[in-house]
Amino acid sequence: MVMLDQRALPEAEVELECRCAADVAEAIRVLAVRGAPVIGIAGAMGVALAASVGENVDEAASLLVGARPTAANLAWAVREVRREGDEPDLLAARARRLHADEVERCLAMSRHALSLFEAGSAVVTHCNTGALATGGHGTALGAIITAWANGLVDEVFVDETRPLLQGARLTAWELERAGIACTVIVDAAAPALMAAGRATHVVVGADRIAANGDTANKIGTYGLALSAREHGLGFVVVAPSSTVDVHTATGAEIVVEERASDEISSRWRAFNPAFDVTPAGLIGAIVTEQGVLRPPYEPGLRSVDGARVGSELDAEASPTSPAVG
Amino acid sequence: MVMLDQRALPEAEVELECRCAADVAEAIRVLAVRGAPVIGIAGAMGVALAASVGENVDEAASLLVGARPTAANLAWAVREVRREGDEPDLLAARARRLHADEVERCLAMSRHALSLFEAGSAVVTHCNTGALATGGHGTALGAIITAWANGLVDEVFVDETRPLLQGARLTAWELERAGIACTVIVDAAAPALMAAGRATHVVVGADRIAANGDTANKIGTYGLALSAREHGLGFVVVAPSSTVDVHTATGAEIVVEERASDEISSRWRAFNPAFDVTPAGLIGAIVTEQGVLRPPYEPGLRSVDGARVGSELDAEASPTSPAVG
Repeated sequence: MVMLDQRALPEAEVELECRCAADVAEAIRVLAVRGAPVIGIAGAMGVALAASVGENVDEAASLLVGARPTAANLAWAVREVRREGDEPDLLAARARRLHADEVERCLAMSRHALSLFEAGSAVVTHCNTGALATGGHGTALGAIITAWANGLVDEVFVDETRPLLQGARLTAWELERAGIACTVIVDAAAPALMAAGRATHVVVGADRIAANGDTANKIGTYGLALSAREHGLGFVVVAPSSTVDVHTATGAEIVVEERASDEISSRWRAFNPAFDVTPAGLIGAIVTEQGVLRPPYEPGLRSVDGARVGSELDAEASPTSPAVG
Repeated sequence: MVMLDQRALPEAEVELECRCAADVAEAIRVLAVRGAPVIGIAGAMGVALAASVGENVDEAASLLVGARPTAANLAWAVREVRREGDEPDLLAARARRLHADEVERCLAMSRHALSLFEAGSAVVTHCNTGALATGGHGTALGAIITAWANGLVDEVFVDETRPLLQGARLTAWELERAGIACTVIVDAAAPALMAAGRATHVVVGADRIAANGDTANKIGTYGLALSAREHGLGFVVVAPSSTVDVHTATGAEIVVEERASDEISSRWRAFNPAFDVTPAGLIGAIVTEQGVLRPPYEPGLRSVDGARVGSELDAEASPTSPAVG
């Protein structure tokens, strides 16, 4: 199993070979592969890889799920890929199917999100939610690119996204490949940008959405939401239904992963939470592959969750599309 | 004229020699010396240097003032140092006097700010406002260190302060030298920290305070203020009266310096405002060397400005103290 090592981007496109589940779990843990939807796909493929090389599939699955505790998609995908059993060829087929479904979901999200933009929109986004993060067209970034292609977005501001600079390294790189000139800002500059009237929307992905709509996403998202409310910007979360976790009632129950201090400083003690939680009350819309939800979110999220489980059980003949980006 | 090149910290203590006003202006422009009060001192000393080497003092003064447009202290100090004429020895004496006054002011601010803390305070600060920034004990950081020494502050969180990391490089270094263990966070993590109830105060410096109390400070300060209001934290500005600019009515009139894109990214286009403006309505207290002001700020700031001009005219026999830190 070969994946693009995202740590080397944008300077170099380096391939990383994984030979067992532990290799995949390590790649997820060190963020060689990152982005909530795509680590779900990597987790599913890791399970299939484990079975194909004769590893214990239960152990492989728990190793993989433990690699990143906050992302809902990872646990979901590792469970989903085993729905019909642990036979190696079946797991491989299911993993490919989950990937194909993710591609479909991204396109559907981008389509639904179009209704949230108007001509002249100027968007702030955070972290990376494009093809690198999803295996498909992207969640938030897919929505932005589609809105741009439809003439609705004029300007894209990319938070650099400390500490690991997924915005400056990955999102700016993806936008360049899509032919969209963006402007990078330090994370702390977004409120000033909004105060100056230079942005109309904040569009972000999600790592886990609780039943009430509280949303865990990359550290810094919550501050963007506070500032967006202050300045009347639209605040939009774009994420597949696999990110919705109706078994988590509110954001207070979401376990936020703390990462190593030395991601921030090799010299000083640092506190390094990977995510923060944006209360549902600050979110203007949540877009999944099933459509646009508006507050109050709980009924819609429960229905999204129900519909997703149904479609997984039923849609054996779901068509697949080529990956975009 | 020799100064510590702050760009090399904390890895190395490198001295930078300036032989003419242009050298000093360049050192200010490239942030080899930075921090609102200390660039005032550097500007005053640059004027004295220019006179001592026979340069045109008017030209030197305008070169120096132009090096950083937002900091009020720089223009103020370059004007103040020339108050009694451009005779070289007199300028040198006035510049040393301005430095000594700054040291006094820092100690007075720290003393006044004590009343704003209570036992168990946990403080978030941004950028660097310590000895490196002031030539004295510090403004915001001086207040924090004094409150810590008085047993009122238990924990100090230091925003790393992108793009140039003055927090992670300089503030953490100064706190270590003061024997205070701090915790560095990425700028975007402060709202999550506040939401978790781990901070009680935000304490920052200022580069320019308008007549109504609107305050320009390092980019990111405004977002901290929005989040502090949301979570009921005290938001305190600590700055000498030379930062107060009563000729600027509100923050809307403050010219915010935009710095080079490549401070943020060598690869992509970036928007890099050095400062943002925090509206007076988000500020709980402004501490100057004359005391603690509370909203509404305008009468107090006008009185601070008046008292400062008076003391400059009168206090020829002001005592001097050794620099701290």
